[in-house]
Amino acid sequence: MSVTTNEVRDKAKLARSAAEEMNLLTTEQKNEALAAMADALIANTAAIISANELDLKRGKEQGTPASLLDRLALNPARIEGIAEGLRQIIALPDPVGDNLETIERPNGLHIEKIRVPLGVIGIIYEARPNVTVDAAGLCLKTGNAVVLRGGSAALLTNRTVVDVLRTALSATAVPKEALQLIEDPSRASVDTMLKLNGLLDVIIPRGGASLIRNVVENATVPVIETGAGICHTFIDESADYRMASDIAFNAKVQRPSVCNSMETLLVHCAFAASHLRKLADRMLEAGVALKGCAETLRIVPEASLATDADYATEYNDYVLNIRIVSGIDEALRHIRRFGTKHSECIVTEDAANADRFLRDTDAAAVYHNASTRFTDGFEFGFGAEIGISTQKLHARGPMGLPALTSTKYIVKGSGQIRQ
Amino acid sequence: MSVTTNEVRDKAKLARSAAEEMNLLTTEQKNEALAAMADALIANTAAIISANELDLKRGKEQGTPASLLDRLALNPARIEGIAEGLRQIIALPDPVGDNLETIERPNGLHIEKIRVPLGVIGIIYEARPNVTVDAAGLCLKTGNAVVLRGGSAALLTNRTVVDVLRTALSATAVPKEALQLIEDPSRASVDTMLKLNGLLDVIIPRGGASLIRNVVENATVPVIETGAGICHTFIDESADYRMASDIAFNAKVQRPSVCNSMETLLVHCAFAASHLRKLADRMLEAGVALKGCAETLRIVPEASLATDADYATEYNDYVLNIRIVSGIDEALRHIRRFGTKHSECIVTEDAANADRFLRDTDAAAVYHNASTRFTDGFEFGFGAEIGISTQKLHARGPMGLPALTSTKYIVKGSGQIRQ
Repeated sequence: MSVTTNEVRDKAKLARSAAEEMNLLTTEQKNEALAAMADALIANTAAIISANELDLKRGKEQGTPASLLDRLALNPARIEGIAEGLRQIIALPDPVGDNLETIERPNGLHIEKIRVPLGVIGIIYEARPNVTVDAAGLCLKTGNAVVLRGGSAALLTNRTVVDVLRTALSATAVPKEALQLIEDPSRASVDTMLKLNGLLDVIIPRGGASLIRNVVENATVPVIETGAGICHTFIDESADYRMASDIAFNAKVQRPSVCNSMETLLVHCAFAASHLRKLADRMLEAGVALKGCAETLRIVPEASLATDADYATEYNDYVLNIRIVSGIDEALRHIRRFGTKHSECIVTEDAANADRFLRDTDAAAVYHNASTRFTDGFEFGFGAEIGISTQKLHARGPMGLPALTSTKYIVKGSGQIRQ
Repeated sequence: MSVTTNEVRDKAKLARSAAEEMNLLTTEQKNEALAAMADALIANTAAIISANELDLKRGKEQGTPASLLDRLALNPARIEGIAEGLRQIIALPDPVGDNLETIERPNGLHIEKIRVPLGVIGIIYEARPNVTVDAAGLCLKTGNAVVLRGGSAALLTNRTVVDVLRTALSATAVPKEALQLIEDPSRASVDTMLKLNGLLDVIIPRGGASLIRNVVENATVPVIETGAGICHTFIDESADYRMASDIAFNAKVQRPSVCNSMETLLVHCAFAASHLRKLADRMLEAGVALKGCAETLRIVPEASLATDADYATEYNDYVLNIRIVSGIDEALRHIRRFGTKHSECIVTEDAANADRFLRDTDAAAVYHNASTRFTDGFEFGFGAEIGISTQKLHARGPMGLPALTSTKYIVKGSGQIRQ
């Protein structure tokens, strides 16, 4: 067995043992641990920033893109923000132990369905050190152990952060072995995690399309797929121009880099005839590059011709496809073909079309007259988010603390046997 | 692309298209289709039995074990029972469209979490033709399309049954393409199904340990793992003898071939000193072969010495391991090491030990003073069962109709954009 396999397997085993203890902790004990973690991050700001500077230096030398370096960079304010995130998790209700259902059977059996931790959660992510702390906080709060495998570009930062957090845990009831960081930066460590059935209960990938595809295609451990979002906004004939323009502009421009931003705007032909030129100008002024169908190009000659490949691309950038459609049928067909079942929106004043769109569109979140940018744990009122699930098993859509739990049935009897 | 790959992929694509229509059907339309299916089975009893006789004949020629032939065999009464199962599904409430949660946000967004079909469900199973009808009924009732891949020993029976059902569907609102049977009996057809991400939303394996292991280890499509059950009953010091004996006897003997039957009996040493001899005699008289730890052998010399391999075996037969333990701690450790997280039971009059066992045992169903044989969708009052999930994602434990659904968030706004 290779050194990598040993590191991953050994740490997962430690996490598995720790998970058995985690299950028995009270909410107060878990909250005290989160508070100790937050305090320790602040107290060790200098050490964390020193490690982060080394990661940044190496990244610059290796020609890492500036946008990636920006995500990687920490400063005292960002560390304060990360610690504050832990304090917000403390304030959230602990879902573990919640009774979801009670069943009384005619034979006197009393059955309760209660929330329990998932067990050991593997998180595979890229070079964002905030995810290290965030994922640790959410997993520990829900009584889980966690095995983190962050991007190699953040390795020194993550190692220091996890050292600080584990030292803080040593003085609490939460076993420090419940928090593990895989340090091997090679692909082999990810490959090993993906096959650790029996030691990992679930893997949640957080990152770009290729990272998620690798996890989904190669994992034998159950996966909660997150992230890919080719989101559409369909402006129907009856839409109010001001509302439609604001929603579409917000969905594209407010933060194009995230998964719930819009990639393709579908416009009813009648609305397009009256309003598309104005809307396109607003997008162009904000620096959005436009691509469009042949009909669109007649109204907006600045756009280039959109191909099927464009409609199937998640740009995460200031780029927008526009397609003029004959009505809701064509819009639904387009979304069915190119959507990734993340977030889809209709802007309309027609109640029947709104109902039909909300019912017939298969996506984690479907919107009537609001921006797709709201698909987010905080915006949904969950108070925290471990990611947005784009698959159908277990959690779907924004995932708060309950998404990190499973259930078990507790059955109380008085000697019942099966006839 | 091979012929096999083509058959599987083509049928899955037809199912995927049909799933889009299924999502739009009313409960009444789905129930009418189930009723037509039930009537057609009865009307075509002769044809089904003819096909079944050919399967049985081939099975006998190939030396198939009698127990397997018994599961495969159909007769008019069994077909009537299978049709009756469909009628029971008609009577169950349709979970699709149920509102699970309503969230009102301060910005005026109105969010509802509603149940939706999973989409296309793949079922991989062995030579039990009743599963063909049962799975079809449960999946269609919940608005899903289904791709069935049954064991090759039942191929002619399954082909006839599915032909009958599809013909019945042709006269209803449910598209017949929502029900697909993979006819290629080779392993290649299973392998192809396991990788059909995008066409299948989930695969549910139903069958023996090797079938399930193959699916879990090779599928990239999400899987709901079912079935493996090394279930324990722990008789504590304070247990009432009569109750403990009845529960243990029922868990082992009432139907040893199923996953919720007991494989290992853990006995507190004090209880063992007074009562194990009597209990062992009861098991021996029922034809149960006993294996035991060294302590057990001193009380029950008829037993052979149990190894760790025995404790890790799901016998599904008239065989029982007995281990004498010093108390609840040792019992919990044994279950943690050898259990498969299916169903575990404590028999005790000590409320503190009962609470601790129910809390600290990680399993889909944990029992106090009742037989593990109750882990079953019908016994839990769900009215039907597609299987018993032994994993933690999505459904856990007995799965009724809601386990065949996912959710989506419907968000209604009045022009809200993200700040």
